[in-house]
Amino acid sequence: MSIINQKTKEKLYSIIFEADTPEGKAFDVILILIILSNSILIIAESVDTIRYTYGTLIDILGWFFLVIFTFEYLVRVYIIKNKMSYLISFFGIIDLLAILPAFLGFFMPQVRFLVVIRILRLLRLFSILKMGRYIDESSHLLRALKASRAKITVFLSTIVFIIVIVGSLMYIIEGPANGFVSIPTSMYWAIVTVSTVGYGDISPQTSMGKLISSLLMIVGYGILAVPTGIISHELAHTAKDNQRTKTKICQNCNGEAYRSDDKYCSKCGASFDQVN
Amino acid sequence: MSIINQKTKEKLYSIIFEADTPEGKAFDVILILIILSNSILIIAESVDTIRYTYGTLIDILGWFFLVIFTFEYLVRVYIIKNKMSYLISFFGIIDLLAILPAFLGFFMPQVRFLVVIRILRLLRLFSILKMGRYIDESSHLLRALKASRAKITVFLSTIVFIIVIVGSLMYIIEGPANGFVSIPTSMYWAIVTVSTVGYGDISPQTSMGKLISSLLMIVGYGILAVPTGIISHELAHTAKDNQRTKTKICQNCNGEAYRSDDKYCSKCGASFDQVN
Amino acid sequence: MSIINQKTKEKLYSIIFEADTPEGKAFDVILILIILSNSILIIAESVDTIRYTYGTLIDILGWFFLVIFTFEYLVRVYIIKNKMSYLISFFGIIDLLAILPAFLGFFMPQVRFLVVIRILRLLRLFSILKMGRYIDESSHLLRALKASRAKITVFLSTIVFIIVIVGSLMYIIEGPANGFVSIPTSMYWAIVTVSTVGYGDISPQTSMGKLISSLLMIVGYGILAVPTGIISHELAHTAKDNQRTKTKICQNCNGEAYRSDDKYCSKCGASFDQVN
Amino acid sequence: MSIINQKTKEKLYSIIFEADTPEGKAFDVILILIILSNSILIIAESVDTIRYTYGTLIDILGWFFLVIFTFEYLVRVYIIKNKMSYLISFFGIIDLLAILPAFLGFFMPQVRFLVVIRILRLLRLFSILKMGRYIDESSHLLRALKASRAKITVFLSTIVFIIVIVGSLMYIIEGPANGFVSIPTSMYWAIVTVSTVGYGDISPQTSMGKLISSLLMIVGYGILAVPTGIISHELAHTAKDNQRTKTKICQNCNGEAYRSDDKYCSKCGASFDQVN
Repeated sequence: MSIINQKTKEKLYSIIFEADTPEGKAFDVILILIILSNSILIIAESVDTIRYTYGTLIDILGWFFLVIFTFEYLVRVYIIKNKMSYLISFFGIIDLLAILPAFLGFFMPQVRFLVVIRILRLLRLFSILKMGRYIDESSHLLRALKASRAKITVFLSTIVFIIVIVGSLMYIIEGPANGFVSIPTSMYWAIVTVSTVGYGDISPQTSMGKLISSLLMIVGYGILAVPTGIISHELAHTAKDNQRTKTKICQNCNGEAYRSDDKYCSKCGASFDQVN
Repeated sequence: MSIINQKTKEKLYSIIFEADTPEGKAFDVILILIILSNSILIIAESVDTIRYTYGTLIDILGWFFLVIFTFEYLVRVYIIKNKMSYLISFFGIIDLLAILPAFLGFFMPQVRFLVVIRILRLLRLFSILKMGRYIDESSHLLRALKASRAKITVFLSTIVFIIVIVGSLMYIIEGPANGFVSIPTSMYWAIVTVSTVGYGDISPQTSMGKLISSLLMIVGYGILAVPTGIISHELAHTAKDNQRTKTKICQNCNGEAYRSDDKYCSKCGASFDQVN
Repeated sequence: MSIINQKTKEKLYSIIFEADTPEGKAFDVILILIILSNSILIIAESVDTIRYTYGTLIDILGWFFLVIFTFEYLVRVYIIKNKMSYLISFFGIIDLLAILPAFLGFFMPQVRFLVVIRILRLLRLFSILKMGRYIDESSHLLRALKASRAKITVFLSTIVFIIVIVGSLMYIIEGPANGFVSIPTSMYWAIVTVSTVGYGDISPQTSMGKLISSLLMIVGYGILAVPTGIISHELAHTAKDNQRTKTKICQNCNGEAYRSDDKYCSKCGASFDQVN
Repeated sequence: MSIINQKTKEKLYSIIFEADTPEGKAFDVILILIILSNSILIIAESVDTIRYTYGTLIDILGWFFLVIFTFEYLVRVYIIKNKMSYLISFFGIIDLLAILPAFLGFFMPQVRFLVVIRILRLLRLFSILKMGRYIDESSHLLRALKASRAKITVFLSTIVFIIVIVGSLMYIIEGPANGFVSIPTSMYWAIVTVSTVGYGDISPQTSMGKLISSLLMIVGYGILAVPTGIISHELAHTAKDNQRTKTKICQNCNGEAYRSDDKYCSKCGASFDQVN
């Protein structure tokens, strides 16, 4: 394993995993651009007229991106010290998923399009561009959702009960002749209705079915109001908590939340100045 | 009635109706698993390909579940002292409804699927798993809904008036030729529109009809905002009340709400420790 | 005009226009029941199978209701002192509209169904049943809407601009061949889309059309949030105002709002006890 | 350039650009009426039956409006001192766009309907009618949106990620045979679904597709709650800030926000009295 010495390895680490040096920043910007072009390529490839016209070019670019991402993944694994923690980290799994479907694509052609999951690598943007503000806001939203977890569980259980009961009822009333071919299909119809999407691929034909649908819609209507009220209320609530004990999270080591007047991470000693 | 003595009866009661002893807990967990498998079986049975392939197995399992639930219901009725209060209690009725459709199914085959109502028995989960927090949240939601009862009545009356008037108007304007075959059908269309579901099975064809629909949609749009605002407002309101006089309800006897610093139920003497 | 003397007239007035005496209350309850049965009759009449089966009965009942409502209207006009103020009052117009379409129906058969407007007479329920609480809530809602009038005007103007511009754009892009036959039709499509109703009777077929629709949906999505936020905010706002200066409105003379500790209407001297 | 002398030019300026003199007000009212009639004409022109019946009249009126708007635009450019700042100002561009499509229409007939953009000239209404209150409310709304910019960015990114991933997934699962002909089309379907519009022109046919759609709908449902909660929360928040430091913006020079007790614009010296 001595093809490159320790110093080069450390240098590479700072370029690939960090974004403080000019080289590290340049690497990240180039990577983001590559991921973006790749995502656009995959989406474009799925359009028949584009594939037929630029088929060869798309194939070449596809191989090009695969080689880059595979090489990058191997280098990442090679240079990091704590390999296991990277492999099972969020970005480690995303990086693997970014190359896996392309290899599986040799056996199952359609799976190949799953490489679009590479777009998730763009989430790195948040940590690269030091968008602390956006992470703050995300965590505010997540905290609001977390605080209303119990309420949302109650709410989702109610929805599931309504969908199963109404779905079964409509299967009995309308029956396969009117498109309600099974209880799962009826439940799909109930979800389409209660979420107010209403494709119209399945719709009640009998008077009784229309009556029950009407009730479901008015109920779905009221139900729609509940989570909005919950989120709204929690956002205001967590906002108040926030003002009392504003915290930040170390970008360097993903350490615990710190008080807003702390200047350095107590775990890795990183300065918080870069975050704001 | 001396087939089993009083002691066995009491023992059975604590297993079936309570969840404090290991045996009681085991009984509840097994019951929940049986109800869940049964619900999945009923849903699966409604799918044609599954029924044709595993018809005999499904029939046998259906009989198996019916025997279990019937036996359980009879035991429950037999061992409880205050039989009437169980029979007319929420869970007593659910337990009966869980077995009734299967027997009615001998005469009306489709009704058989109503046994899916057995899923409501899962509501026991809340009391079994001592999910006091979820009950707290449910009651918070219910209190918010109760507090805004008058507002929601005004709101629902407005909706009903709009639906009847617009429904009749569209029946006159569009007429049976364009799918608005009767006022009830027109009212069904108005509900589909005002709730923003919009199946498209019936849609206005004339210019005047499209104009009125457009107005209805914009109004429905604004109306959608009202209950959300109400619920939102009430949730914040009841949350404040909550902080002043936090209450809890006795899990044992479903007694009235107690002050949060009460330690024992004043009706049945049950300790509140188990609830938290 | 001396067919009935002044005293009888006053007696009749208290029965028909007031609801404080037992006779007045009985009259109101009977009237409400008649209006309800009449509404149900009209809705039922529009259903083909019902009309063909009970045609004669429906005709007779229709005549019966028309005679009652016409007679009641004439008596109301006859016994009231200030005839003009009744004729142009809200309920005076509703009472007239309740009988007019039936007479017009002799010339234009379909118009006959407009008698369904009689359902609006049920609004009397609020004043009859002394549902002060509901009127309080309605006025709270109305005040919240009134307070946010300027915001809602800005909001509606934005919607109108978006609908006209996007409607015209889609007419140019999609054209009559894809169902966008004229700008008004395109605007109808834009309203159906932005309100998230989405019938699907007209939907974009070209790539450019789908792109613009997508943008419209995401914008409509965000717009949906604005009025909800406004109403929500105003409800909370007016609720606070309410606590400071809780007011009530005289049911007797529709006089101005009074302070909540006032006991009598300063205009007509009516007691407020009956309101609460 | 001495066809009209300086004094006439200044007089014209006050009539065309200002609305304080009776002549200026009259000019604005006439202009608004012309723009409104023109907008209605364009919308009416797109309806086949109207165009065939009144074709010649519409053509003449179209030319009439074009001449008026072109002449007005040229006069505006001629009489203003700082020509460049008008040409690149919001209303300068709108005024140009109001005449450009008509000239382009000679080459591309359909583009002609883009003249509907003239409706945007009605935005002048706000400044003409001194609707300070409405501008206040607009700026309140805009400030609420601006304050929640970071949250809305996070929210929109989440939506884009979900749409790309689910769109690709559905393209793989459903495939071109079921209407999901390419990833962009699948993404269009995902937007139609997540915004709860649900045209039904494309809808899932396979069981797996229906399952994923159901999940998307329930998620879209929850997502719908987030921006509403954000806006709601920010409206309340900015309302509080507003009470502390109520500001106004100079209508004359669009200068920065001033404190509510300021009487004159510190930039152009305009009095704020006219605004309220």
